[in-house]
Amino acid sequence: MTLESALTTADIAAVIDRVRAASPLVQCITNTVVANFTANGLLAAGAAPAMVDAPEEAGLLASVAGALLINLGTVTTAQAAGMRAGIAGAIGAGVPWILDPVAIGALPLRTGLAHEFAALGPAVIRGNASEIGALSGGTGGRGVDSTATPDEVAEVAAQVAGDFATVVAMSGAVDLITDGTRTVRVASGNDQLTRVTGVGCFLGALMGACAAVTPDRLLAAAAATAWVCVAGDRAAKQSEGIGMFAVAFLDALDELSGNEIAQGGAVSVS
Amino acid sequence: MTLESALTTADIAAVIDRVRAASPLVQCITNTVVANFTANGLLAAGAAPAMVDAPEEAGLLASVAGALLINLGTVTTAQAAGMRAGIAGAIGAGVPWILDPVAIGALPLRTGLAHEFAALGPAVIRGNASEIGALSGGTGGRGVDSTATPDEVAEVAAQVAGDFATVVAMSGAVDLITDGTRTVRVASGNDQLTRVTGVGCFLGALMGACAAVTPDRLLAAAAATAWVCVAGDRAAKQSEGIGMFAVAFLDALDELSGNEIAQGGAVSVS
Amino acid sequence: MTLESALTTADIAAVIDRVRAASPLVQCITNTVVANFTANGLLAAGAAPAMVDAPEEAGLLASVAGALLINLGTVTTAQAAGMRAGIAGAIGAGVPWILDPVAIGALPLRTGLAHEFAALGPAVIRGNASEIGALSGGTGGRGVDSTATPDEVAEVAAQVAGDFATVVAMSGAVDLITDGTRTVRVASGNDQLTRVTGVGCFLGALMGACAAVTPDRLLAAAAATAWVCVAGDRAAKQSEGIGMFAVAFLDALDELSGNEIAQGGAVSVS
Repeated sequence: MTLESALTTADIAAVIDRVRAASPLVQCITNTVVANFTANGLLAAGAAPAMVDAPEEAGLLASVAGALLINLGTVTTAQAAGMRAGIAGAIGAGVPWILDPVAIGALPLRTGLAHEFAALGPAVIRGNASEIGALSGGTGGRGVDSTATPDEVAEVAAQVAGDFATVVAMSGAVDLITDGTRTVRVASGNDQLTRVTGVGCFLGALMGACAAVTPDRLLAAAAATAWVCVAGDRAAKQSEGIGMFAVAFLDALDELSGNEIAQGGAVSVS
Repeated sequence: MTLESALTTADIAAVIDRVRAASPLVQCITNTVVANFTANGLLAAGAAPAMVDAPEEAGLLASVAGALLINLGTVTTAQAAGMRAGIAGAIGAGVPWILDPVAIGALPLRTGLAHEFAALGPAVIRGNASEIGALSGGTGGRGVDSTATPDEVAEVAAQVAGDFATVVAMSGAVDLITDGTRTVRVASGNDQLTRVTGVGCFLGALMGACAAVTPDRLLAAAAATAWVCVAGDRAAKQSEGIGMFAVAFLDALDELSGNEIAQGGAVSVS
Repeated sequence: MTLESALTTADIAAVIDRVRAASPLVQCITNTVVANFTANGLLAAGAAPAMVDAPEEAGLLASVAGALLINLGTVTTAQAAGMRAGIAGAIGAGVPWILDPVAIGALPLRTGLAHEFAALGPAVIRGNASEIGALSGGTGGRGVDSTATPDEVAEVAAQVAGDFATVVAMSGAVDLITDGTRTVRVASGNDQLTRVTGVGCFLGALMGACAAVTPDRLLAAAAATAWVCVAGDRAAKQSEGIGMFAVAFLDALDELSGNEIAQGGAVSVS
């Protein structure tokens, strides 16, 4: 594995070690399906989770947190009010925040919110190719056909990163993270990660934990991605069955060293 | 085990195999306690979960899903609006939907909603004897005394199936599924299934996954019931302790073949 | 281990045995992050969970439950209406209820609600030193500095217990439970209990299960605390990794006898 430009395996290892040393508070305004798994994943990684949705409180907490996650998975108009308050608090205090536009595209409430929020300056936008595609082309979204080649998909990610002046992290067989200029690919990870609900949602929260300890958002997103992928690889080796895989994944988040994650992540930069 | 009429072990195995091949999308408007377990159970079974409650989106998603689950476990008036939208979307698109009237009887909000929804044509109504009894006798509900014999309970189930022109699936020591004419009994399963929260709620979601791949609603409910019961039996053999049982149950949902489930389900038809 | 005054290891064992024999219904109006874990923990302990938030139903269910838990972890104004209804139902029927003022202090909505609810006569208030400190000094709250000595912290707990004529259960390296006169300390338990989300929240629910079977609220809180701490010790011995610890914790809640918990709890009374 070779890393070029200013993003090395040592950088990735250092971010992971710093999360464990600093235990940053990550406020998660996220979906009800994955809240428990997200909290346990953050605890296993050494960070401190907090889930506060109420608009009376979300902004205040975000302003003192290390990072904020906005995940649209089960958003309602009531929760959207808390998200707006949380984002305002984060922006006012200079706290980095992550946007996960879950399942946007056809569903109108979340799609509108995703465009509204993306324009407010998230540190990272995390999603799959379909979700990132729905953010491209201004408010319309041109979508990403399932027959799109990896190169076409990468082009859309870079475009969205440029449009919103953010880092885009796109999940897939190879995870791709781009700020529109540099592109990081993480080729580790396995299919079982897609068979446990909330792994992607947790990844967004973990990007928050990493963004709390480094100003380099591309590095934060890459470190979190490698962490999840290498933990998935370890869990697959140490478990049989999809139920045990989820348990072993939490173990691995905790037990892998920063160096093991950085070295095992199959990370490349272009 | 002998199956008579048009519901054989081969039919059950075929439904299970079809769920895994087609991976139907099951939209679950369900309670917050079991959403995570339901999603992981559907993934383990090979289906695709989606939990979208917002009334702005629930109908649209239901109209493109393979099935819809309506579970009243933690219903509020806000969630009920999403349920109404979801049901309307399902009906408009001919998508089968399952009603789980959790804990109805004395609690007024959910009891009113259960009667409202039951009259709208669910493919299956799933519950325990007390819940099904609360749907009998029109809007009043006569209840099912805990001293009722299995024959009396079966009579109530058949009556409710007839009243609402639906299939009723009633959990118990022996699970009973009836369309008012044919009755299927599934005698497998074990007590540990009642000591993990959300197994019954997940069963409703799995009935949706099965109903997405066969128009025979009695068969869909029977296949899902056998799937859960035989997975419970396998999990009990492969685990010690109630925490590990829940983990092993997810493993078993994934690993058991359609034939193993159909043959092991102790299914009988009358 | 020696217990003085009217709280012995035999008392603790008896409460635990009674929970398993009576299987009390514990209504939990709690946060969405921990609802699943709380329900599975109660089931493992032999109690019966119910989570009903809707204001139309919460009071009715509380009035027929064995106990009610009010946990402010993800409270919103909508959920607060259900909490008020639940508390009113519990008070009207003489049902004991537990207040867990999660993360109060700086966050305004929950802090106001905690003071409102604490004045209504909870059987037990459960929290960490910071949360209990925020309830001291009337409506203002003087807080508990992280540099406070154990003796200073104990003084605050006794003051809050006196102010609200309740039992205060304060989590920490040594758990402390006081009614302002008697003080119980539980010195068992381990750090891994703080690395699984919701253990403290579940402890509040388990205090409800215990309060449902004894009028001695100090004893109820002490028995539940010992139960969780000793189960944590057992789980730590029988697992490696933080994911497996959570699974083994549920096993241990179920498998430990009342005597094993009482004898292993390192309980002292002063």
